[in-house]
Amino acid sequence: MKGLFYPRTPTGRAAITPPTPWHYSGELLTFEYRTDPAAIAALLPAGFSPAPDDPGAVAAIWADWQSCGPDFAEILDPVRGQYKEMFIVVRCQFQGRLYSRCIYIWVDKDFAMLRGQHQGYPKKFGAIHMSRPVALGKAGPKLEPGGVFGATLAAMDRRLAQARFTITGPAPAPGFVNALPMAHNRWMPAIETDGTDSLSEVVTMSGFDGQMGRCFTGDFDLDYFDSPVEELLDIAPREKIAAYWHEVCVSWRAGTTLARANLGAIDSIGEGTA
Amino acid sequence: MKGLFYPRTPTGRAAITPPTPWHYSGELLTFEYRTDPAAIAALLPAGFSPAPDDPGAVAAIWADWQSCGPDFAEILDPVRGQYKEMFIVVRCQFQGRLYSRCIYIWVDKDFAMLRGQHQGYPKKFGAIHMSRPVALGKAGPKLEPGGVFGATLAAMDRRLAQARFTITGPAPAPGFVNALPMAHNRWMPAIETDGTDSLSEVVTMSGFDGQMGRCFTGDFDLDYFDSPVEELLDIAPREKIAAYWHEVCVSWRAGTTLARANLGAIDSIGEGTA
Amino acid sequence: MKGLFYPRTPTGRAAITPPTPWHYSGELLTFEYRTDPAAIAALLPAGFSPAPDDPGAVAAIWADWQSCGPDFAEILDPVRGQYKEMFIVVRCQFQGRLYSRCIYIWVDKDFAMLRGQHQGYPKKFGAIHMSRPVALGKAGPKLEPGGVFGATLAAMDRRLAQARFTITGPAPAPGFVNALPMAHNRWMPAIETDGTDSLSEVVTMSGFDGQMGRCFTGDFDLDYFDSPVEELLDIAPREKIAAYWHEVCVSWRAGTTLARANLGAIDSIGEGTA
Amino acid sequence: MKGLFYPRTPTGRAAITPPTPWHYSGELLTFEYRTDPAAIAALLPAGFSPAPDDPGAVAAIWADWQSCGPDFAEILDPVRGQYKEMFIVVRCQFQGRLYSRCIYIWVDKDFAMLRGQHQGYPKKFGAIHMSRPVALGKAGPKLEPGGVFGATLAAMDRRLAQARFTITGPAPAPGFVNALPMAHNRWMPAIETDGTDSLSEVVTMSGFDGQMGRCFTGDFDLDYFDSPVEELLDIAPREKIAAYWHEVCVSWRAGTTLARANLGAIDSIGEGTA
Repeated sequence: MKGLFYPRTPTGRAAITPPTPWHYSGELLTFEYRTDPAAIAALLPAGFSPAPDDPGAVAAIWADWQSCGPDFAEILDPVRGQYKEMFIVVRCQFQGRLYSRCIYIWVDKDFAMLRGQHQGYPKKFGAIHMSRPVALGKAGPKLEPGGVFGATLAAMDRRLAQARFTITGPAPAPGFVNALPMAHNRWMPAIETDGTDSLSEVVTMSGFDGQMGRCFTGDFDLDYFDSPVEELLDIAPREKIAAYWHEVCVSWRAGTTLARANLGAIDSIGEGTA
Repeated sequence: MKGLFYPRTPTGRAAITPPTPWHYSGELLTFEYRTDPAAIAALLPAGFSPAPDDPGAVAAIWADWQSCGPDFAEILDPVRGQYKEMFIVVRCQFQGRLYSRCIYIWVDKDFAMLRGQHQGYPKKFGAIHMSRPVALGKAGPKLEPGGVFGATLAAMDRRLAQARFTITGPAPAPGFVNALPMAHNRWMPAIETDGTDSLSEVVTMSGFDGQMGRCFTGDFDLDYFDSPVEELLDIAPREKIAAYWHEVCVSWRAGTTLARANLGAIDSIGEGTA
Repeated sequence: MKGLFYPRTPTGRAAITPPTPWHYSGELLTFEYRTDPAAIAALLPAGFSPAPDDPGAVAAIWADWQSCGPDFAEILDPVRGQYKEMFIVVRCQFQGRLYSRCIYIWVDKDFAMLRGQHQGYPKKFGAIHMSRPVALGKAGPKLEPGGVFGATLAAMDRRLAQARFTITGPAPAPGFVNALPMAHNRWMPAIETDGTDSLSEVVTMSGFDGQMGRCFTGDFDLDYFDSPVEELLDIAPREKIAAYWHEVCVSWRAGTTLARANLGAIDSIGEGTA
Repeated sequence: MKGLFYPRTPTGRAAITPPTPWHYSGELLTFEYRTDPAAIAALLPAGFSPAPDDPGAVAAIWADWQSCGPDFAEILDPVRGQYKEMFIVVRCQFQGRLYSRCIYIWVDKDFAMLRGQHQGYPKKFGAIHMSRPVALGKAGPKLEPGGVFGATLAAMDRRLAQARFTITGPAPAPGFVNALPMAHNRWMPAIETDGTDSLSEVVTMSGFDGQMGRCFTGDFDLDYFDSPVEELLDIAPREKIAAYWHEVCVSWRAGTTLARANLGAIDSIGEGTA
């Protein structure tokens, strides 16, 4: 049976995710701010602790991606490779090391949702929009001081976030909150649905062949809105840090398991057939 | 941290799936046919074997659902509870017992996708449409002989399946292929992405408080179409069995783990912090 | 060249709307309330005046439709016939007679948008959801006292309206605001885009072969929300009248022009070719 | 009452289209080919005749746009300004002059659909995807020889067209078929739905402040697929001409009416009220 993720089939052709490596090229808007450090600490599971310095720092990031697998087929059929996402990153400590960690994320394609689940990103569906820079004309920002971008997030027919970014000048890097290796939990609740997990891991990962292209900083506004099925207001901005637009590419092949609870075997799969 | 599935938060409010029990009310179109038994056998993972009788039997099912969690909040905000799905079911044996098993499934909402993943359904996104019966007028089938239904499935901007159903009369039950407890694999590939799995389980489940409402059988046509990222033509109909429209309700609380490979602990989560 | 609406082609097959008659079967939630009569009067164009009695009465209606053209092809390909809409209706006078008039409407399919434009409905796109009654189970309202429905409208990633309806008992008819022949303006701004119109008509229309099925009244709540590109708060409820759920069918073939401004010919089409 | 297009309101805020001028910045993939000239002639209405030279030339164009009105508000709320379209253009003669003419077009936003209707573009809804060039990485084409783009169109859950483009080198201009002022018909069928039109015009238009940015030519493939509600196979490619990627900006304020049939007044709007 082939296929990284489901469905697994003899050829693997139907799998929702192609094999790794996965290649990404995209444009990102990053909004760094400080919120109540206790709100971040409350979102960290067992084994994690807040970053010792600036523990209330948050990055809210809009990204417009193209992505593909090792045979680049998605470039010829872009509905299978293009997607947008909005995600919120904090920093934390695990096993004595400092990591970045995605606490919330919305995407607009199924392959991205499952790819993210493999990586421990807690992906839900959303409608994500962000201005794209233009080389010509008036219907978008130019990549120069004064260029103005808008970005919005909605889910379940409610607007959840919106932001405005105005370029003030070039920047050497797009901030510090999303700059570390990621540390994510991968959980699968037991089918007994009794509060236990069949899978409980902490994993870390980084991309390879990453390159940063043009990068700008600027002024910004960022607002979150309420929803009965979100908790964004708990991490609303209290103080702005900085905002950035940048272009980037990266590839991803694999991560590393940092910790895994031992659930034990129940029966040996593969010997059960009469 | 609360929340059956991700994200897990102090309140659980943002979780993509509410706690169980989950309640479902819906209408289904079921198309039962025979395909090459070898094509079904090829889709069964280690430990599974084909059903001894009629091993080429398949059910292709369109369903139009409303669903909710234990507080019924989704009924007041139906974007969070309504969804459609198309799924393909075969029968198989595991540990000497006969089960139904979903080999392919497409849904149109994220909460349904993740709920299904908990249950081992290999859900991808699709566009699903099916005629609804009407009490009045000409713009839909009446629930009586001669009533004609259409059903279609598309994914990645390609039509994958379409079907036609014409009621000939009442039926006592909607077929036999999807009538058994389900046996599904739940896999999570290791973050090392090296061909191993961090989670590998076989689970079974059934609903409770199920009731069947009106049920009709009839004539049908069913066609699959090709896609570079699907394998439906391998299980195309060779011989029709029967088709059904029926209404149903069911609730779901939990399943049972039949088998689980022991992956072992890597480190103890929760003791790693300096 | 054939095709009621564009594109017009030798066969008419590609036209966005099939020929009439159009058949509809659907379920509607109607919320009748009173707003500031001046806000309604301000939405009536030249030639129209408010209804003399109860001039602040409004009906906010959610509808879940199946529709088809004269060959019923859409029933077999339901993506081409199913749609939902939310629309807001007031009453008004024109040429001394009383009419219903749709002041705002959102739909979720293109064919419905253009069909509505032919009829003078000012259709925009929206995301429309409403609970469907269920015969079985807990995941929806039953058609009996205590059955609870939710309904929502969103556009441009913002929630614009939401409503709750609880059945109290049967009703003879679903209100009075949307009960009259419609009187709509059909405008096409001149391509010179100078504030003049190339087409300016008032039309009226009614369906035929209409039938009302089950009809219930009940308690309700209705809320509108703000958007930079909507004006719903101006017609927000001040006083509730009544709410209804009912099922209905109707067919539509044609309307009648009540008034048309004479724009005059510019040149004779069809004689221009050298 | 304000609002270029419907709904018209006291403020015009709810209108589906902002006032002109409209500004556009975008990227286009243009595929020029020859089809049966008789198939093009059959799509030209009364008064039009085929282009005298190369009458079978067609341009199939994918476009990824940002757009905005005179206050640029859409740039801060990009869901209201970003859209994609695929359109097919031929050349024709009217009143002795040569024009470009859009014979089919699909877009993915309502504001674009109505804006196009004002301009005589026969817009329907579709799902449009096209590769975007990347500055960095492997997940998209670079703007240099060898850069490969894919483009697809779907509507009503069926794939209608797909294309591949490989840059071979720079080009001075993106072809000749879509290079002339447009000549479009604007029709509104009479509400009597009796085969007559209440509005029948031929209009022409050009943009202003247009600028072409980078422009490349290359090798290509283009395929159309069948649908019961499309007629693309009738204009399928017989011979390739050339293909292009280019970036462009343009603004649009108004067009000119070339011809208009005189429908006459039925009654004077505005004097009808008792």
